[in-house]
Amino acid sequence: MAIGGLGQLDQEYDGSNLRIGILHARWNKEIIDALVEGAIKKLLSLNVKRENIIIETVPGSFELPYGSKLFVEKQKRLGKPLDAVIPIGVLIKGSTMHFEYICDSTTHQLMKLNFELGIPVIFGVLTCLTLEQAEARAGLIEGKMHNHGEDWGAAAVEMATKFN
Amino acid sequence: MAIGGLGQLDQEYDGSNLRIGILHARWNKEIIDALVEGAIKKLLSLNVKRENIIIETVPGSFELPYGSKLFVEKQKRLGKPLDAVIPIGVLIKGSTMHFEYICDSTTHQLMKLNFELGIPVIFGVLTCLTLEQAEARAGLIEGKMHNHGEDWGAAAVEMATKFN
Amino acid sequence: MAIGGLGQLDQEYDGSNLRIGILHARWNKEIIDALVEGAIKKLLSLNVKRENIIIETVPGSFELPYGSKLFVEKQKRLGKPLDAVIPIGVLIKGSTMHFEYICDSTTHQLMKLNFELGIPVIFGVLTCLTLEQAEARAGLIEGKMHNHGEDWGAAAVEMATKFN
Amino acid sequence: MAIGGLGQLDQEYDGSNLRIGILHARWNKEIIDALVEGAIKKLLSLNVKRENIIIETVPGSFELPYGSKLFVEKQKRLGKPLDAVIPIGVLIKGSTMHFEYICDSTTHQLMKLNFELGIPVIFGVLTCLTLEQAEARAGLIEGKMHNHGEDWGAAAVEMATKFN
Amino acid sequence: MAIGGLGQLDQEYDGSNLRIGILHARWNKEIIDALVEGAIKKLLSLNVKRENIIIETVPGSFELPYGSKLFVEKQKRLGKPLDAVIPIGVLIKGSTMHFEYICDSTTHQLMKLNFELGIPVIFGVLTCLTLEQAEARAGLIEGKMHNHGEDWGAAAVEMATKFN
Repeated sequence: MAIGGLGQLDQEYDGSNLRIGILHARWNKEIIDALVEGAIKKLLSLNVKRENIIIETVPGSFELPYGSKLFVEKQKRLGKPLDAVIPIGVLIKGSTMHFEYICDSTTHQLMKLNFELGIPVIFGVLTCLTLEQAEARAGLIEGKMHNHGEDWGAAAVEMATKFN
Repeated sequence: MAIGGLGQLDQEYDGSNLRIGILHARWNKEIIDALVEGAIKKLLSLNVKRENIIIETVPGSFELPYGSKLFVEKQKRLGKPLDAVIPIGVLIKGSTMHFEYICDSTTHQLMKLNFELGIPVIFGVLTCLTLEQAEARAGLIEGKMHNHGEDWGAAAVEMATKFN
Repeated sequence: MAIGGLGQLDQEYDGSNLRIGILHARWNKEIIDALVEGAIKKLLSLNVKRENIIIETVPGSFELPYGSKLFVEKQKRLGKPLDAVIPIGVLIKGSTMHFEYICDSTTHQLMKLNFELGIPVIFGVLTCLTLEQAEARAGLIEGKMHNHGEDWGAAAVEMATKFN
Repeated sequence: MAIGGLGQLDQEYDGSNLRIGILHARWNKEIIDALVEGAIKKLLSLNVKRENIIIETVPGSFELPYGSKLFVEKQKRLGKPLDAVIPIGVLIKGSTMHFEYICDSTTHQLMKLNFELGIPVIFGVLTCLTLEQAEARAGLIEGKMHNHGEDWGAAAVEMATKFN
Repeated sequence: MAIGGLGQLDQEYDGSNLRIGILHARWNKEIIDALVEGAIKKLLSLNVKRENIIIETVPGSFELPYGSKLFVEKQKRLGKPLDAVIPIGVLIKGSTMHFEYICDSTTHQLMKLNFELGIPVIFGVLTCLTLEQAEARAGLIEGKMHNHGEDWGAAAVEMATKFN
């Protein structure tokens, strides 16, 4: 396993009363789709109801932080407030420095967004040097790594319930 | 294509009621002009009216964040508030570290500006290691890449309408 | 010793009236456990009562800053406010850029968290290039380095009492 | 020319009603002096009156952001508010990492300072790897590059008038 | 001299009415002690009274920003407000990435602290790649460099008086 020491759940969490938003970018669609599926699968396994998993998209990862804010506010306006949001994006190093600046600014803003929104914002962004690295972390390369979307789903349920 | 996995629109967006500001730096004029044209072309194709695309300039990319704020505030004072702003700049690595510090501070501030201004701020800045990389991303090298200004125009319309 | 010039306590601190929270990530469990034990041992030696050391977990290091906030707020709600919090995580360089972006955003936010929470937030995060480096800093490699958890426990008591 | 694509003014700006502050660090005095002179020359050519160009100093570049704030506030207290400030510093890579951390923190804070002070803060800091690079950008090496102080003077007048 | 172009004072400053705080970390004690002595010596030479130089410590450099805030607030509570604070630390590159993340977060927060505290916060942190570099900048290697603590003392007096 490329990333060693993967953490285990410390207890069973129950997501049956939670509403979880998934906001994903649309670049690298096949990988994104697998990650979103992984997150949904884990959320369902932790008792989140399918109708309480709300999925929306933005164009790219740079739009994830502000898009998450707009998404969370819209759900609140609709009377269906979210208990956590999972922004999902796949960034892959290209020949310019675009990757570095997008990764850096997006990560910092998603970190701050937890504090701004007052609900857990999970870091569902892959920052990979190659396409293959991203595929492996989406569970798309048989026998190589697990689907990281599952970790993000689990983290969302845990962070949304643990400190209540 | 140097940047793989380009995202597609998830639905048709209608910009007919939107006012979009484009604020561009004036360095590397030929490339900037092409990017601005690409953004305009896409905005028009998404039904933004030509008279509702407002174009203004600042000297360099460092001026884009604060200039965007002044631009947005001025349009509001004029009774013509913008629904999104697309700051456009072209930064190319030189021999000093100027490129790195300008790219870094500008990207972070444009990210935060979404939250400060309360309207979408699109990341229309190319952070390239060579002039040719920038030309390719402005659609100026036949058969190499597409004009990224188009992506920015599309992102502006989507982000300004999606969460209303 | 890999890190030279280790600082000594400037005076004896008394933690007998303090409540200290330890919030740790669950990746690299064996190393985390050793660091947590090191912190507890030092806290006890500075007269913090065992029942006043509160331990909680989050999935990964990215969750440490916001988790610390939720943790601190919960203890306050319970009428048992914390005087300092020690977020503990172990990050090890992998093949993608995940390590760099998590380390960077987590460190910056833990720094700011001191100011946000108004109590000392100790930097209990190892940012290592190899697993062995982390093991050494957790006191798990005989004769190589000391357990850094001890430093964090000492820093928590000092910072929570010194400026009162 | 080491920096290609230099932007041109989009129109003539009139600085005859402006008060512009120049705050410069005192390291690398010969280069600083040339940059300050370049800025003054350009300001005068754009009709800023000599008595409305206020010059003050701080020890080093790290002092530029907070010094700019104190400078701006003092001029306001004196009933002579500034319309823009040009912080000028020359940083040259040395053998420690001092250069990197000063450049990074200073650039970020000058960026934010625009928003904090509500007047344009021009980025008049050279971040060079060699002394010669700095000399060239101050117009001190015949036939090599232009004096960047001129760009900063022009940017100050433009940014202080354009969005009124 | 490893750092060229050292700035000179632009005028004589009088610190006779100032209270200056020095907050230093305790790692690399010999070097820290020399830097603190250098700062004190310069403060005295600028007429700061010895009883108005208040010295306090924190464990490591990461504690300098929040420690400075606590230090400044405590002196205010005691009716003895500080006019400037000089946080002093010595960071030396080790085998993990600890150095980079501590340097980065500490520098950024000390920069912001000027604005948060409303008094000058001098950057008294050495960010060195080797122990010898730090020793040289503390004036401990005969004939190599000067004691940078002196610069920090001078900067504190200048910044605390200049804009009044």
